[in-house]
Amino acid sequence: MSNNPTTVIIGGVAGGMSTATRLRRNDENRTIIVLEASGHVSFANCGLPYHVGGVIPDRSSLLLQTPEALKERFNLDVRVNTRASSIDPDEQTVTTESGEVIRYDDLVLSPGATPFLPPIAGIETAYTLRTVEDVDRIATAVPGKEKAVIIGGGFIGLEMAENLRHQGLAVTLVEAGSQIMGPLDVEMAAIVAKHMRDNGVDIRTNAQATEISETGVTLQNGQTLEADLVIAAIGVRPASELAQAAGLEVSDRGGIIVDAQQRTSDPHIFALGDAATKKDIHSGDNTLVPLAQTANRHGRLVADIITGRTTSSLPVLGTAIVGLFGLAAASTGWNERRVRAEGKDVRVIHLHPSSHAGYYPGAAQLHMKMIVDAESDAILGAQIVGEEGVDKRIDVIATAMRAGLSATDLADLELAYAPQFGSAKDPINFAGFINDNIARGEKTVQWHELDERLASGALLVDVRSPEEFASGAIPGAVNIPLDELRVRHEEIADHDDVIVHCQVGLRGHNAARLLTNLGYDVANLDGGYLTWTNGQED
Amino acid sequence: MSNNPTTVIIGGVAGGMSTATRLRRNDENRTIIVLEASGHVSFANCGLPYHVGGVIPDRSSLLLQTPEALKERFNLDVRVNTRASSIDPDEQTVTTESGEVIRYDDLVLSPGATPFLPPIAGIETAYTLRTVEDVDRIATAVPGKEKAVIIGGGFIGLEMAENLRHQGLAVTLVEAGSQIMGPLDVEMAAIVAKHMRDNGVDIRTNAQATEISETGVTLQNGQTLEADLVIAAIGVRPASELAQAAGLEVSDRGGIIVDAQQRTSDPHIFALGDAATKKDIHSGDNTLVPLAQTANRHGRLVADIITGRTTSSLPVLGTAIVGLFGLAAASTGWNERRVRAEGKDVRVIHLHPSSHAGYYPGAAQLHMKMIVDAESDAILGAQIVGEEGVDKRIDVIATAMRAGLSATDLADLELAYAPQFGSAKDPINFAGFINDNIARGEKTVQWHELDERLASGALLVDVRSPEEFASGAIPGAVNIPLDELRVRHEEIADHDDVIVHCQVGLRGHNAARLLTNLGYDVANLDGGYLTWTNGQED
Repeated sequence: MSNNPTTVIIGGVAGGMSTATRLRRNDENRTIIVLEASGHVSFANCGLPYHVGGVIPDRSSLLLQTPEALKERFNLDVRVNTRASSIDPDEQTVTTESGEVIRYDDLVLSPGATPFLPPIAGIETAYTLRTVEDVDRIATAVPGKEKAVIIGGGFIGLEMAENLRHQGLAVTLVEAGSQIMGPLDVEMAAIVAKHMRDNGVDIRTNAQATEISETGVTLQNGQTLEADLVIAAIGVRPASELAQAAGLEVSDRGGIIVDAQQRTSDPHIFALGDAATKKDIHSGDNTLVPLAQTANRHGRLVADIITGRTTSSLPVLGTAIVGLFGLAAASTGWNERRVRAEGKDVRVIHLHPSSHAGYYPGAAQLHMKMIVDAESDAILGAQIVGEEGVDKRIDVIATAMRAGLSATDLADLELAYAPQFGSAKDPINFAGFINDNIARGEKTVQWHELDERLASGALLVDVRSPEEFASGAIPGAVNIPLDELRVRHEEIADHDDVIVHCQVGLRGHNAARLLTNLGYDVANLDGGYLTWTNGQED
Repeated sequence: MSNNPTTVIIGGVAGGMSTATRLRRNDENRTIIVLEASGHVSFANCGLPYHVGGVIPDRSSLLLQTPEALKERFNLDVRVNTRASSIDPDEQTVTTESGEVIRYDDLVLSPGATPFLPPIAGIETAYTLRTVEDVDRIATAVPGKEKAVIIGGGFIGLEMAENLRHQGLAVTLVEAGSQIMGPLDVEMAAIVAKHMRDNGVDIRTNAQATEISETGVTLQNGQTLEADLVIAAIGVRPASELAQAAGLEVSDRGGIIVDAQQRTSDPHIFALGDAATKKDIHSGDNTLVPLAQTANRHGRLVADIITGRTTSSLPVLGTAIVGLFGLAAASTGWNERRVRAEGKDVRVIHLHPSSHAGYYPGAAQLHMKMIVDAESDAILGAQIVGEEGVDKRIDVIATAMRAGLSATDLADLELAYAPQFGSAKDPINFAGFINDNIARGEKTVQWHELDERLASGALLVDVRSPEEFASGAIPGAVNIPLDELRVRHEEIADHDDVIVHCQVGLRGHNAARLLTNLGYDVANLDGGYLTWTNGQED
């Protein structure tokens, strides 16, 4: 046994445990030691908020493995409540807080991330959520509480808002930025914000917490939000202190820099998961993507590389999804903010199709956005919000992006259709059709470009029905219903800049085609009245 | 107006109507005439069975468009109850049954398919389902009926079985072949058959109907099934009589042969939809794929080609799905029967993962099968059955196939994960992992190969728990639970052909890796006890 190689893994959740079990499957003759700082390994970190809300009532179902079971099945030496306090790369040793020195042949760093705590007075009294111990503390604190303030409008903050509502608390969510859900663009995040508000969550954006006290949270504007429970969910930082102290290279955001073999600047030390950098799919730059899926996939990869396989990790898209009060919000790749900041020439497409055939019961409206490189037709990113079929469509787009399909290729994807599941022309196909139409010359106007166009004298024609027009319209629009446009188009004949719009963009497309064929210079308001309305929120 | 080109379209559903509306969007100055033999255009053909069952109670919701609305919006000349009786390709004319002769510049054939009626005595008294008129007849006939026999175990037959059960009828489904749902392999179709039976549908396979009378259906074995309602759903045939009479080339199965521009053997005549051939994605051969999705996509394409665009239709995968009593069954590409018949060297993979994280409420077991070219690692086909997440996974695989991703590439797809929607290692990733393991040397045995292997002396080791083993096991298996295998493996040391298995294949994989690393020659039973059990049904 003495000549067996030893792999030490720091961190026993997601990436670390995937590494450990795969390593054992690859190599029976290896000492595998897992050091986990918390009291639990292999727990369901993405399930923690749902235990607070009672959606997952049984705490034990969050604990997927125990050190004993992992010893029995995989002959792993798993040590919980064991924090590594230093690494000596020259000696190839890890020293634990209790002073034990462990020699390694390979060291795998999968310590995860730690909640970011900004310098707010009293922040140390706020609860954070990262470990089973954290969820125990919150679950113990909740009974009898009435008013919660959650600081941070990211995934964890929003999930906690839902779950505290499930427990009957009044919930206010405070977000310092101008919108919740940073991965989404503002008009997409607005749909989520509205849904949260409809479910009783008081969302405050542009709201900077300055002090947390026993009675509540004070904002920069002087207002105090009463609270008997405060959760800080402002984001996470790579837990890279140990790596930094050992002299390993880290990025400016603190991620442990790794190559495509997940190797750090020390050839015997690998890193993965939330603590390690990933390569961005579009820029190739080092980025941080604290997502369980990537951590798990990279765990398998690291084990294979340690046992001699030649393989590489791929750049990441950052595909993510969150479920909130029955609404799903998902994104992959870059958002429009990011793309515009890079100065790329893009096509932006909004559509609002039905999740499945409208004539079959239970269909829900999807809100989709796709951002396309106008030059190469590459899909740069997508965002989808809705109550059904969101996960399916984002996964198809993420697969298409990974495979290098173009946006127009989506038009011809052959997806499974029956009326319960989709439409003969699936929303994905529609995104491809719309992109193809624009690529071939159809002009569109984005919701945030409309004011400027109208100010420069464009005529806005609302082609919806008079009833729709009467129930709410864009200021300045004139109403000519689509079905009358063929006979009434001369009413707009003296305008040389015409913008048409309907509710979601489809009738607008028909109107734009008709007017173009009649010789007009016309653009369609992308995503119609609905996208424009979403852009006016918040 | 007289110099405008005229396009005549035969068939006003799916492909035909997609052609017509796109054509108008592309060209305002064109006469577009649609001839539809039935009384309705643009109806929801895939929704018809659900109107019979009351799932879609409102008949009008099946009628998506009227000739009047299509005239108003798209300036189409749509003529229902108008059957074309002949085509003269030389004169470029179509003659209707009423004797009208219409000259065309381009003719588009989208007549669909007609129910196949084999020579069974009394078959003309059976109901078929293809048009709104058909559904009206059945809906009128159902009240008061008690016992239905459905002939044919394809999609329509199964959907009708479900819907007649919804109306309270006793339903027997008669299938001449050895299994229902031909696109699936037998062990996958068995899951569907069991679910149908659990929902009260009496399924008879290898059952050939020989006579239909007022009292019921007589089978070849002499048995008579009582019935006061008989539905024939034996399949469809391309409605290509008109095309054949006009001298257009058809395939040996009667499909109108088209090129990648959907052009028939006459350059002025296009065909699409159920009546036209498609190119098979793997063989490149002409095939028939009577699916709405393909028809709709090709309608857009034909309109673009007629108006001068250079573009091509792609080979088809035949992605399809059906929902039955809450269970979904989907497939894409080739099944194992087809692949084996071609003599390809393949990897076949069964897995039974959870549709989403097991710790989050509502997860359901998926039954997945993937067939992979062992040489190229190309995905040849996939089949998925389950109550949740089936459509998503088949769509991801269909997208991967269209994009030419390899089976191993599935391991690294970056799919959206939150516990409501998937797992950190998604079922799709798992399919890729398993394929990768086999490609790298792990041996598996298929359920249908097991008997022969056991007969030649292989030892079968069931690595499940003693409780699982006691509740049902494969004859001849010995039980050594996985967690005891590391210390008990010498019990099997004198066997040189060892097959391990567990419930679904995952513990079997761990056992196979352990024993391989200990020096054994071992194979894992693919898909475990569950796939083997499914293979024993029917």
